[in-house]
Amino acid sequence: MDLKEIASILNTRFDAENFEIVGMNTLKNAKKNEISFVSNSKYIKDIQNSHAGAIIIDSVNAQFIPENCVALVVENPYWEMAILSKYFTPNIEDLDSLEPIIGEGSIISPKAEIAKGARIGKNCTILAHVYVGSNVIIGDNTVLYSGVVVYRDCKIGNDCMIHANSVIGSDGFGFATNTLGEHKKIYQNGNVIIENDVEIGSATTIDRAVFGSTIIKKGTRIDNLVQVGHNCEIGEYSVLVAQSGLAGSTKLGRNVVMGGQSATAGHIEIAPFTTCAARSGVTKSIKESGLTFGGFPLMEQKTWLKLQAKIARLLK
Amino acid sequence: MDLKEIASILNTRFDAENFEIVGMNTLKNAKKNEISFVSNSKYIKDIQNSHAGAIIIDSVNAQFIPENCVALVVENPYWEMAILSKYFTPNIEDLDSLEPIIGEGSIISPKAEIAKGARIGKNCTILAHVYVGSNVIIGDNTVLYSGVVVYRDCKIGNDCMIHANSVIGSDGFGFATNTLGEHKKIYQNGNVIIENDVEIGSATTIDRAVFGSTIIKKGTRIDNLVQVGHNCEIGEYSVLVAQSGLAGSTKLGRNVVMGGQSATAGHIEIAPFTTCAARSGVTKSIKESGLTFGGFPLMEQKTWLKLQAKIARLLK
Amino acid sequence: MDLKEIASILNTRFDAENFEIVGMNTLKNAKKNEISFVSNSKYIKDIQNSHAGAIIIDSVNAQFIPENCVALVVENPYWEMAILSKYFTPNIEDLDSLEPIIGEGSIISPKAEIAKGARIGKNCTILAHVYVGSNVIIGDNTVLYSGVVVYRDCKIGNDCMIHANSVIGSDGFGFATNTLGEHKKIYQNGNVIIENDVEIGSATTIDRAVFGSTIIKKGTRIDNLVQVGHNCEIGEYSVLVAQSGLAGSTKLGRNVVMGGQSATAGHIEIAPFTTCAARSGVTKSIKESGLTFGGFPLMEQKTWLKLQAKIARLLK
Repeated sequence: MDLKEIASILNTRFDAENFEIVGMNTLKNAKKNEISFVSNSKYIKDIQNSHAGAIIIDSVNAQFIPENCVALVVENPYWEMAILSKYFTPNIEDLDSLEPIIGEGSIISPKAEIAKGARIGKNCTILAHVYVGSNVIIGDNTVLYSGVVVYRDCKIGNDCMIHANSVIGSDGFGFATNTLGEHKKIYQNGNVIIENDVEIGSATTIDRAVFGSTIIKKGTRIDNLVQVGHNCEIGEYSVLVAQSGLAGSTKLGRNVVMGGQSATAGHIEIAPFTTCAARSGVTKSIKESGLTFGGFPLMEQKTWLKLQAKIARLLK
Repeated sequence: MDLKEIASILNTRFDAENFEIVGMNTLKNAKKNEISFVSNSKYIKDIQNSHAGAIIIDSVNAQFIPENCVALVVENPYWEMAILSKYFTPNIEDLDSLEPIIGEGSIISPKAEIAKGARIGKNCTILAHVYVGSNVIIGDNTVLYSGVVVYRDCKIGNDCMIHANSVIGSDGFGFATNTLGEHKKIYQNGNVIIENDVEIGSATTIDRAVFGSTIIKKGTRIDNLVQVGHNCEIGEYSVLVAQSGLAGSTKLGRNVVMGGQSATAGHIEIAPFTTCAARSGVTKSIKESGLTFGGFPLMEQKTWLKLQAKIARLLK
Repeated sequence: MDLKEIASILNTRFDAENFEIVGMNTLKNAKKNEISFVSNSKYIKDIQNSHAGAIIIDSVNAQFIPENCVALVVENPYWEMAILSKYFTPNIEDLDSLEPIIGEGSIISPKAEIAKGARIGKNCTILAHVYVGSNVIIGDNTVLYSGVVVYRDCKIGNDCMIHANSVIGSDGFGFATNTLGEHKKIYQNGNVIIENDVEIGSATTIDRAVFGSTIIKKGTRIDNLVQVGHNCEIGEYSVLVAQSGLAGSTKLGRNVVMGGQSATAGHIEIAPFTTCAARSGVTKSIKESGLTFGGFPLMEQKTWLKLQAKIARLLK
C-alpha cells in the first residue's frame, strides 16, 4: 500500500513524496519502507531516532519527526494505527501458498489440518484435530497432540512437544479505545517463535506478537493453562508452572521459574535464575539474578514469610 | 410434559387440575405454562408475585403460593428441581432440524462440524475442527478459529472473532447436594448470546445459562483463559483480561475492566466504568461508577496501595 | 529391557545377575521386575523396604540397598531416571491394538478419532473432534463433548460428562534439572482413572500419573479451566470450582470443596468435608475434617475474615 492511500484511510493531509509501505512496526524497529506510530510524549527520543518511512503522530509531537520521515498527523494516533493495522493483516489462510511439505518419517493424522505453505520436518507426530496454519514451520521430532492449534506464520523448533488443545499464535489482546469507550482491534501481525526442546502443557495459550515475535527460547518447560501475552520473550530453560500468566512484552531471563498461579505485569524484565513463588505477582522489573520472590506486592520470599508471621500476630 | 407426570417424577401428591408444562424457569420469569421452584424462605415475595403455573416448594413455604399456581410440595425442592431439569433438557444434537444454512461468501472448512438447524451469516470464516451446535445462529463477518466449540442454541452476532479452542455455551456449574453429600446435576437449559463486535481470546469458557441467557454485550473484549459463569451479563465494551473469572449470575455494567487473574463472586453487580485491577477479588456489588479497585478483600486501588505500604512497614 | 541394557544406558557398572525389567515405579510400589530410583537421603527407610528389582541410586545411599536388589550407582539418580523413563514410554498411539469396540446404542461422530484398542461402553455420545487414545476404556452413558482429548490408557467410568476441549491424561509436569540448568523430561507412564458419575467442565486439564494413576473418584464435580496435577487423588463427591488448581500428588478426601481460583501445593492431604474458600492457597496438609479455610497463607476462614478487618484498621 502506498503512503497516499494510507493518508486517505486515516483521513489526514498528505503532501509529501509518495512511496510504498510494506508493513507497520515499532518506532525502534521500523525500516524505511514501514510505517510506525507514537501516542505518548515519553517516546520523543524514539521518534527522533526512528528509521520509519512515516509515523502516525499527533500535532503536538509532530515537531520531533526526523528528516526523511513523513509525519501523518492525526488526533488519536493509537486509534488510527488500529484502523490501519487491519489493512496490513494477511488472510487467515494463505490459499496461494504451495501445498504443505512433510518431512520423511513424520506421521500426520488424516484428521489433522495442515494449511498451505506449512513445512513440517522429519519424524514428527501430528495427531487428529491439530491445526497447522499457513506457512508455519515445524522442525524435526516434534509432537503435536490432538487439538493443538498453531496460527499462521509461527515457527516451532526441533524436539518440541505440545500437549492437547494448546494454542500457539492466537492474537495478542490489543485494541485502541476512543473517548466514547469503544474499542478498535489492533491486528496482531507478528508471530510466535518456539525454539528447540520446548515442552508445552495442555490448554496453554501463547499469543502472537503485534509486530515482530513472541519468543520461547530453547529448553523451556511450560505447564497447563498458562497464558503468555504478545511480544513476551522467555529465556532458555525457564519453567512456567500451571495457571501462571505473563502480560504482554515481558522478558524473562534464562532459568526463570514462575510458580503456579503466579503472574507478571507487562513490559517488565526478570533477571536470569529468578524464582517467583506460587501465586506471586511481579509488577516491576527484577534486576538482580538468583533470588526468590513471593507475595503480591512482590518481595523476597523470606521477607514475605516473615511478614505473614507478623500479620498473623495482629490477631493476638 | 403435563403436571401430573411431573408430580409423579417428584413423587409428590397432585390433586389440582392437570395442564401442560413447557419448561422450567425462575420465580420471576416463569410463565403460566412453566414450572418454578423455591428453596429458600428469603424469596417469599418472589413466590407471591410469581406467574409460574406451578412451583416446587417445601411444606413451610407452601402457604405463600399465589392463587392460580399449583404447589408441588416436596422435602428438598432444590434436589427435586435438579431431578426434573433432566426431563426438560433437549437432546445434545437436534437430529430433526433442517440442514444448516450458510450465508453467501462464508468459508466453512470441510473439517468443521456444523450441526443441523444451525444458521451462519454472510462472509464468515469457520476453520477446521470448529463445532457449531444445533440451532446455533451466527451473524455476518464472524470468524471462528480452529477448535472453537459453540454448544446448541447459542447466538453469536456480526463482526465477532473467537479464537482457537474457546468454548461457548458449555453447561454452567450447577448441581444440588443432598444430606449424604451426593450431587445431582441441574441441567443447564438456557443459552449464551454474544452480541455484535465481540472478540474472545483462546481457551476461554463461557457457560450457558441454567434458565434464560448468559449475555455478552456488543463491543466487549475477552482475553485468553477467562471463565464466565452461567447467567452472567457483561455490559457493552467491557474488557476481561487473561485468566480472570466471573462466578455465576454476575452483572457488569458497560466498560467495566477486569484485570488479569481478577475475579468476582456470583450474583453481584458492578457499576459501569469500574476498573478492577489485576488479581483483585470482588465479593460485593459496586454501586458507584468510574472507580478503580484492587486487592482481596476489595478496596479502592489507592487505598490498597497505601495499605500495602503500611503493611510493609510492619517488618521494621 | 534387561538390567544389563539399562546399566549401559545409564553408563554405570553392572556385575550382578541379569534379568528382565518391565517398568519403572516408586520405591514403595516397585515389584521384583521393576526398577526404582532414589534421589534423597530422607527416603532411606523406603529404600530398605523396597521390593524393587533394582534401584538407581547415588554412592552415598547405595549402602542402604536391601538384599536381592541391584544397586545401579550413578551421580545424579533423578537425571538418570529421567533418561531411562523414555525407554519405558509406549508409542503415542498403539497401532498394533485391535480395532476399537463400541457398545450398543453409542453414537460416535465420524469426525471423532477413536484410536486402536479403545473400548467404549453402551449409550455413550462422542461428538466431533473428540480424541480417544489407544486402549482407553470408557463406561456406559458417558458424554464427551467436542474437542475433548483423552490420552492413551486412561479410564473413564459410567454416567460421566466431560465438556468441550478438556484434556484427560496429558503428561504431568515432570523433569530433572542438571547443574547447567538444563531440563530432561520424565516420561509420564501412568494414566488417569475417572470413576462413575463425574462431571468435568470445559478446558480443564487432568494430568496422567508419572507412575500409577491420577484418580478422580465417583460423584466429583469439576468446573472449567481447572488444573489437576499428576498423581492427585480426588475423593468422592468433591467439588473443584473454576480456575482452581491442584499441584501434583495431592490427595483430597471426600466432599472437599476447592473454591474458584484456589490452589494447593503438591504432596499434601486435605481431610474429608473440608471447604477451601475462593482464592485460598493450601500449602500444608489439613487433618481435621469439616472446617472452612481461606486466605494465603491459609487459615480458618473466620480467622481470615477477622484478620482482614484488623488489617483494614491499620489505615486509621
